[in-house]
Amino acid sequence: MKAAFYQEKGKFSIGESPIEKPGKGEVRLSVQYCGVCGTDVHIFHGVMDKRVSPPQVIGHEASAVVAELGEGVDNVAVGDEVAVRPLRFGAEHSFDKGHKHVGKNLKFIGIDSAGAFQQNWVVPAYTLHKLPEGLSLKHGAFIEPLAVACHDVKIGRVTKGENALVIGGGPIGTLIAFVLKEKGANVFISEVNATRIGMLKDLGFEVINPAQESLKDSITRLTDEKMIDCAFEVSGSQAGVEAMTEVVNVRGRIVMVAIHGGGTRNVDLFKFFWSEVELLGARLYEEEDYEEALRIAASGTVPFEQLITKVGGLEQIQEVFDEIDKNPAGMKYLIDINQ
Amino acid sequence: MKAAFYQEKGKFSIGESPIEKPGKGEVRLSVQYCGVCGTDVHIFHGVMDKRVSPPQVIGHEASAVVAELGEGVDNVAVGDEVAVRPLRFGAEHSFDKGHKHVGKNLKFIGIDSAGAFQQNWVVPAYTLHKLPEGLSLKHGAFIEPLAVACHDVKIGRVTKGENALVIGGGPIGTLIAFVLKEKGANVFISEVNATRIGMLKDLGFEVINPAQESLKDSITRLTDEKMIDCAFEVSGSQAGVEAMTEVVNVRGRIVMVAIHGGGTRNVDLFKFFWSEVELLGARLYEEEDYEEALRIAASGTVPFEQLITKVGGLEQIQEVFDEIDKNPAGMKYLIDINQ
Repeated sequence: MKAAFYQEKGKFSIGESPIEKPGKGEVRLSVQYCGVCGTDVHIFHGVMDKRVSPPQVIGHEASAVVAELGEGVDNVAVGDEVAVRPLRFGAEHSFDKGHKHVGKNLKFIGIDSAGAFQQNWVVPAYTLHKLPEGLSLKHGAFIEPLAVACHDVKIGRVTKGENALVIGGGPIGTLIAFVLKEKGANVFISEVNATRIGMLKDLGFEVINPAQESLKDSITRLTDEKMIDCAFEVSGSQAGVEAMTEVVNVRGRIVMVAIHGGGTRNVDLFKFFWSEVELLGARLYEEEDYEEALRIAASGTVPFEQLITKVGGLEQIQEVFDEIDKNPAGMKYLIDINQ
Repeated sequence: MKAAFYQEKGKFSIGESPIEKPGKGEVRLSVQYCGVCGTDVHIFHGVMDKRVSPPQVIGHEASAVVAELGEGVDNVAVGDEVAVRPLRFGAEHSFDKGHKHVGKNLKFIGIDSAGAFQQNWVVPAYTLHKLPEGLSLKHGAFIEPLAVACHDVKIGRVTKGENALVIGGGPIGTLIAFVLKEKGANVFISEVNATRIGMLKDLGFEVINPAQESLKDSITRLTDEKMIDCAFEVSGSQAGVEAMTEVVNVRGRIVMVAIHGGGTRNVDLFKFFWSEVELLGARLYEEEDYEEALRIAASGTVPFEQLITKVGGLEQIQEVFDEIDKNPAGMKYLIDINQ
């Protein structure tokens, strides 16, 4: 049984994925598909070497078939098709106020411990969500990032008829846009990459290229001066941070989805005061966000197949990551674990 | 009848306050006391000359006696003692979403039109709130800034038993601290001025001087690692902006009270993402905040007299503003309009 190991900056190797007996409350999975997340790319770039322990199997956007149950597991059965919510909750802390998905002692499976780029994977049973009838295992690999999008939209409290702007039309931004559409919002996407713009327009979205036209002017025109009720900063760029405060209206919300690491950003705090704007941090997901993602996936409103840039076999993982680095227009890359 | 006119940067003059007939829905007030707000000091510094129209009467933290009613006014009677909510609502705009206190067409009485540093003042009747029994006209001048504090605490959704930190112990910060105390929060104040620290300690508050000890370490110790549930950035400084993200816990709220004008600030956006922190802009007040301020003022829990640095007569307004500029430890300066 095979596994892909992140070895060091820019390098994967292929090795063994031993069949380990699941412990009490654990399940052994036969992993089927695993998407490549931006975080996996960060790890590949060597910038998270303090957190991962190379050689380490990474990957956390997985679909799988239940292969073996540990003692006391009754929420799934052998043969069930599942998505994995890769969170291992640690001891509670008063700092967390019960929000264990972002708790002080949270461990993320696939970063802080072995991930899904391998054929055998033992995880806690409580991380598993059964895939709905009719959703393929291939598309089941989208449940994790779709749950991120559901969490972000929930944090943004978006309601039907509101104007929503997604700043950055990559994989997460696009899934947010689909969730917003499903909620009945008027969705706009700001994106600079021409290929992505074409793809997003083909998917039916109104897209603005802020490198070619003023985002603020476009939004003013398109919303008849009402502007944006909820903006999602997914770009991770200073330009995105500047845009987010320019477009929101009174009591507008800005959901901070992107990871602005490595320093501070220049933020127009006056705008927050003047129009009573809210900035709302959003990270990962709660159990209910997985349930929402499964519901939306089952409804067929997200055309997952169109979001797949490429599917590579586990042994091609090095080539897939190398290609991602060269392709700023890419959307979702999947690894077919058994190919 | 006298009026003080802001003439130009650093200069007031004393002139006439004519007795004007109140129009339909208006009331003529005999102004009694008017506090000096930070915004008045900004105007005095000449930085708001584009907005004010010198020579102009400014001032908006007023208590007054109703002197004459215009046509159709029935919410007050001649002789009533009132506080003024100095907002003139303009035409509604979709951008405002009904939040007219921060609407696009809002005009602020005392900045955009004549204010309360004069003996006769005509204002819309809907701006008036009757002072509660037992509250003096002198202390009635605190209702406006106390309503700001009530609004800020409401935006922060602070509940009993929560840990709250006020960054900047000036007049507004101190009133926020009193409102927080009234809500049953555990209140901490961060302040660097030694005189203010002494005064705040005398008022019964736990004060931390971040210039002498690490604010984060102090809060860690004082809260037994739970940290802050709601922080109020009232300092308007870059140091305050850095402190606000360091001290809040998971889903902690930061209320942006200060006016960070004239450029951007360096903000740690990663913290917002990581702990799902919220930044909540708060400006001015709504009608219900005045009602809350009147309730709290009537309860006697805010020792207004101790917050008064000095009371000067209207003809001493120039000296009062000159003194404010030289006294970083000052709290509330009042102008006795008829002295």
